[in-house]
Amino acid sequence: MRIKCSKNNLAAGINIVSKAVSTKTTMPILECILIEAVNDRIKLTANDLEIGIETFIDGTILEEGKIAIEAKIFSDIVRKLPESEIDIETSEDYKTTIRCEKSKFVIASKSGEDFSYLPDIEKEKSITLSQFDLREVVRQTIFSISYNENTKLMTGESFEVKDNTLIVVSLDGHRISLRKIPLKGENENVKVVVPGKTLMDLSKIINGGAEDEVNIYFTDRHILFEFDETRVVSRLLEGEYFKISQMLSIDYKMRVNVNKKELLDCIDRASLLIKESDKKPIIISIKNDNNMYLHVDSNMGSMNEEISIRKDSGEIVIGFNPKFIMDALRVIDDEEVNIYMNDFRNPCIIKNEEESYIYVILPMNINTAAY
Amino acid sequence: MRIKCSKNNLAAGINIVSKAVSTKTTMPILECILIEAVNDRIKLTANDLEIGIETFIDGTILEEGKIAIEAKIFSDIVRKLPESEIDIETSEDYKTTIRCEKSKFVIASKSGEDFSYLPDIEKEKSITLSQFDLREVVRQTIFSISYNENTKLMTGESFEVKDNTLIVVSLDGHRISLRKIPLKGENENVKVVVPGKTLMDLSKIINGGAEDEVNIYFTDRHILFEFDETRVVSRLLEGEYFKISQMLSIDYKMRVNVNKKELLDCIDRASLLIKESDKKPIIISIKNDNNMYLHVDSNMGSMNEEISIRKDSGEIVIGFNPKFIMDALRVIDDEEVNIYMNDFRNPCIIKNEEESYIYVILPMNINTAAY
Repeated sequence: MRIKCSKNNLAAGINIVSKAVSTKTTMPILECILIEAVNDRIKLTANDLEIGIETFIDGTILEEGKIAIEAKIFSDIVRKLPESEIDIETSEDYKTTIRCEKSKFVIASKSGEDFSYLPDIEKEKSITLSQFDLREVVRQTIFSISYNENTKLMTGESFEVKDNTLIVVSLDGHRISLRKIPLKGENENVKVVVPGKTLMDLSKIINGGAEDEVNIYFTDRHILFEFDETRVVSRLLEGEYFKISQMLSIDYKMRVNVNKKELLDCIDRASLLIKESDKKPIIISIKNDNNMYLHVDSNMGSMNEEISIRKDSGEIVIGFNPKFIMDALRVIDDEEVNIYMNDFRNPCIIKNEEESYIYVILPMNINTAAY
Repeated sequence: MRIKCSKNNLAAGINIVSKAVSTKTTMPILECILIEAVNDRIKLTANDLEIGIETFIDGTILEEGKIAIEAKIFSDIVRKLPESEIDIETSEDYKTTIRCEKSKFVIASKSGEDFSYLPDIEKEKSITLSQFDLREVVRQTIFSISYNENTKLMTGESFEVKDNTLIVVSLDGHRISLRKIPLKGENENVKVVVPGKTLMDLSKIINGGAEDEVNIYFTDRHILFEFDETRVVSRLLEGEYFKISQMLSIDYKMRVNVNKKELLDCIDRASLLIKESDKKPIIISIKNDNNMYLHVDSNMGSMNEEISIRKDSGEIVIGFNPKFIMDALRVIDDEEVNIYMNDFRNPCIIKNEEESYIYVILPMNINTAAY
């Protein structure tokens, strides 16, 4: 095989497929990037058997063929080469020579024959949304997946198409994040669970804006994302995702309207006094005036602050893990948020009127008599 | 004690003195910042007994006094408070209340009486240079100190005043870095060894430019840096520093003139094939043409590249630790550098005509017959 392409094209392609290179494996071929030069197209592929990515790059094929190169050293070399034309040539004994200006690297490589290709995906059920929306919806939900492999389904996110709306849900047993995106045209209903790692990798390589599209195809076992010159295929998590409708339809006694930034900054400050291991709550008290009183008491010290709010009626004292509230507030773009509460035992819900986002957060046990 | 000051003034002051807060100590008082409000001035002090820093900040004293506050939590709280006026008040039982807008923190503190003050420094021998020059000279030499506590003197840098020039030297047994700065006026000769940690901390808090001055005072056991509203006192390392004049005056057979960026980029690329633990050299060959040939051979692969040079005469094959050459080239601002060499057993010297910088680098053992 012999190809020529620009350093920038090659580096961009490597950057995309690198997300599917396995970093801890006993199979060296999974640490490689496959370069294929056939039918006038140069394709890069990586596949760790959970997620596989392939992308086409512009360049010239001088001799057709394919080769598997260890991803890390290949990526390092290309990144450090001058911004000029790169010439890649393989020999029969699987040595790869990389030339750029006066620089010449020779590195050992592997036969492309042993490489695992991406599975074929039937393109029956599909949706289309903007690259911006997909990246945003992942950012706005991914923080509440679980990392506990014992609750495997919680390590993924539910992607459900229903009534021409994409509903993305993540939950970790303490909180639920839900986002809805309206879809164009008629879309068949479907519901799958996508691994969290796939979504995190994907959102790093989807750089397009609101005008750029991504097509998503669903099968029983796989999900395929197609955008620009790139295809990302991931296995799905097997099993039925959690039913959350009951959690979302709780009656509430009190609706509080508060400036998002003020609340976020205040909880951010208060959380300085709480170590993750402490499991200390931030106490929110709402009395018969138009203030929210926030209070933290730990062995580092105490903090008190009040924030102006608007509310319907009622009083409450309730405790939360401050991180959970901050995680939700950080991904809400609205200037003001509505928080719905019932009593100190029941979750609070942060959502907008049209329910395009819903964040449910369970409270921590506190001795309400003390406040 | 009760003081008021702006959040930005206080945060800037804390940032300066924090460099002298001890992070690993069994004496809790060394983890504190002392606030003193006396004689109409607010002073912050930190002292880990190796280095001590004090700085004055603008503000209003409502009640004189002093208090020692644990530096980390104090710094975290102040950083997260709104950009507004901060009110700090202490009680008789050493509780400190920090108020800012609607936020109120109460944290435990310590009596200022137990705090170790900075030693008094006799201001006999002194020099003055610009803050820019001091920061630069540290950056340009600090990389070649040793971190081996068995060769204590090598963990510092020699600061020598001689013939109205400041000469700064660092060395680690494999290389020497030397920089000279001409001084104004008449300056008494002096030679001390300043701990590397002091210089690294110092260069993080000296933010002034070429117009801003720093006064340096030398005693037998201490060095004092005075700039803006800040004083930094450090212990010196005891003992006589290494004599390096013989190493600097070696005859050379060959002078090579090369573009600095080209050489640096080339060695940077080549070093991808060398793991730190490999101890593999980069081989530099100069033959009877006007090229420098660079070569690396490791179990990851091989790299060859050539660079145009100008030279007097002669041929050489010599091997270096690529990191040592890169460290020196990175802190040289000249577009072209002169490299002086003798044979494959003797060090190379990178220096300019006026010898305001001299970098000496020992070669690695190589089998020259192989190249």
